[in-house]
Amino acid sequence: MEKLYVIKIGGNIIDDETILSSFLQSFASINGKKILVHGGGKLATKLANALGIEQQMIDGRRITDAETLKIVTMVYAGSINKNIVAKLQSHQCNAIGLSGADGNCIISHKRGANSLLGVEGIDYGFVGDVDTVNTALLKSLLDQNMAVVLAPITVDKNGQLLNTNADTIAQETAKALSHLYNVELIYSFEKAGVLLDVNDESSVINTIDPRSYQQLKEEKKIFEGMIPKLDNAFAALQSGVSKVIIGKAEEIHQLISGTSGTSIIQ
Amino acid sequence: MEKLYVIKIGGNIIDDETILSSFLQSFASINGKKILVHGGGKLATKLANALGIEQQMIDGRRITDAETLKIVTMVYAGSINKNIVAKLQSHQCNAIGLSGADGNCIISHKRGANSLLGVEGIDYGFVGDVDTVNTALLKSLLDQNMAVVLAPITVDKNGQLLNTNADTIAQETAKALSHLYNVELIYSFEKAGVLLDVNDESSVINTIDPRSYQQLKEEKKIFEGMIPKLDNAFAALQSGVSKVIIGKAEEIHQLISGTSGTSIIQ
Repeated sequence: MEKLYVIKIGGNIIDDETILSSFLQSFASINGKKILVHGGGKLATKLANALGIEQQMIDGRRITDAETLKIVTMVYAGSINKNIVAKLQSHQCNAIGLSGADGNCIISHKRGANSLLGVEGIDYGFVGDVDTVNTALLKSLLDQNMAVVLAPITVDKNGQLLNTNADTIAQETAKALSHLYNVELIYSFEKAGVLLDVNDESSVINTIDPRSYQQLKEEKKIFEGMIPKLDNAFAALQSGVSKVIIGKAEEIHQLISGTSGTSIIQ
Repeated sequence: MEKLYVIKIGGNIIDDETILSSFLQSFASINGKKILVHGGGKLATKLANALGIEQQMIDGRRITDAETLKIVTMVYAGSINKNIVAKLQSHQCNAIGLSGADGNCIISHKRGANSLLGVEGIDYGFVGDVDTVNTALLKSLLDQNMAVVLAPITVDKNGQLLNTNADTIAQETAKALSHLYNVELIYSFEKAGVLLDVNDESSVINTIDPRSYQQLKEEKKIFEGMIPKLDNAFAALQSGVSKVIIGKAEEIHQLISGTSGTSIIQ
């Protein structure tokens, strides 16, 4: 099967114009099929503050009320998405930017407050958990040699827009497309990879497989915050993704070649 | 050739939630291939005001400086476009929303200040005049039975986003696609059509052809503000569009059937 890269960039990259610009230049030069999933960054919070819309946060998570949904739709699907697309075009990388609502590309459901699925009965507001990914549409766009740029806004079956975690979008998209492509899923963030010593950027673990993961966990050598990410990575591999890579956005080519970051394999 | 409707809705429809909602319900129920081009409306001005960004206007036209470009990109390509798409999804009309930057869908150039193309040497800022429409991409989306929703933001060859007149986008898209489809171009606005008496909504002229247009102009029976629109309509017919219809958005099915509005034919 043909290779497909699904690459997620987080808010910290979006908020730094220099890093974003250099990342997009590298992304543009990746050969082959590719999907970029971007997070939100601080721009939405800034805009909400400027407009005097109060942001309610519970456990560090934004509660997406109706006014906040308007803001994140504008900022994520409008501002950030279109600026990324335009920048990729400037690097001769033909790109198409979509929200999950476009072509019913990513269908989700509103996270159930007080339901079994809800976390501690918190109502996160207009927040979506992904159900299905429209692989036919994505394939048709990739086959037209476009990079697809996905904003973290999805839609439910009734046409309700929902704010959605970009990590989850990347993971569900990678899993769904693994039936059609040889998918490598790359989470790029501020750290150089999974570190043996959280304070030492040079202590990157090059490769983790299920056996070494078990051992690292037993020896308590994995930073606790990293464990859910790694569990998700192994779940993605179980669902058909061929490799998950975690590392710095600025080193995207090295992440792909395996000379930087952490590769998670089966 | 298969029929394609290219329908433009103006700002006055976008600003009125009830009319917009009823229009989108009607639009969703149109059989066959369709493209919706939407204008901007007052939301961008409102947001700019709320953020204290001064809007410079010359001859009733917004000057798009860098800050205003950010606002219109957010509002047109984010807020308005995605809300229209989501609303269409809620009516079981699969839709995909694009700016001209997406897939290099509509390429424009920055209107040249002080150049031969510039109007009276005014620098309109980041405003684009359309050069080319990517018909292959639009056709591929229409052939997947999606309605395409175009925001009035385009891109130049260097990846610069540009604020672009929605009437022009509708017209250029209709012209370009007339090589592939039997295109009817519909401008929906606040009036019932081209009126013999501008104060009498019942004086709609049902059909105008080049001969009757000439006569109406000679008899000074056409409202002056309407003449550029009609000249453009005839230019579109010359370029292969099969019919141009002008009338009320709320009567979209009647406009299509010819029982309402003004049809401009060759």
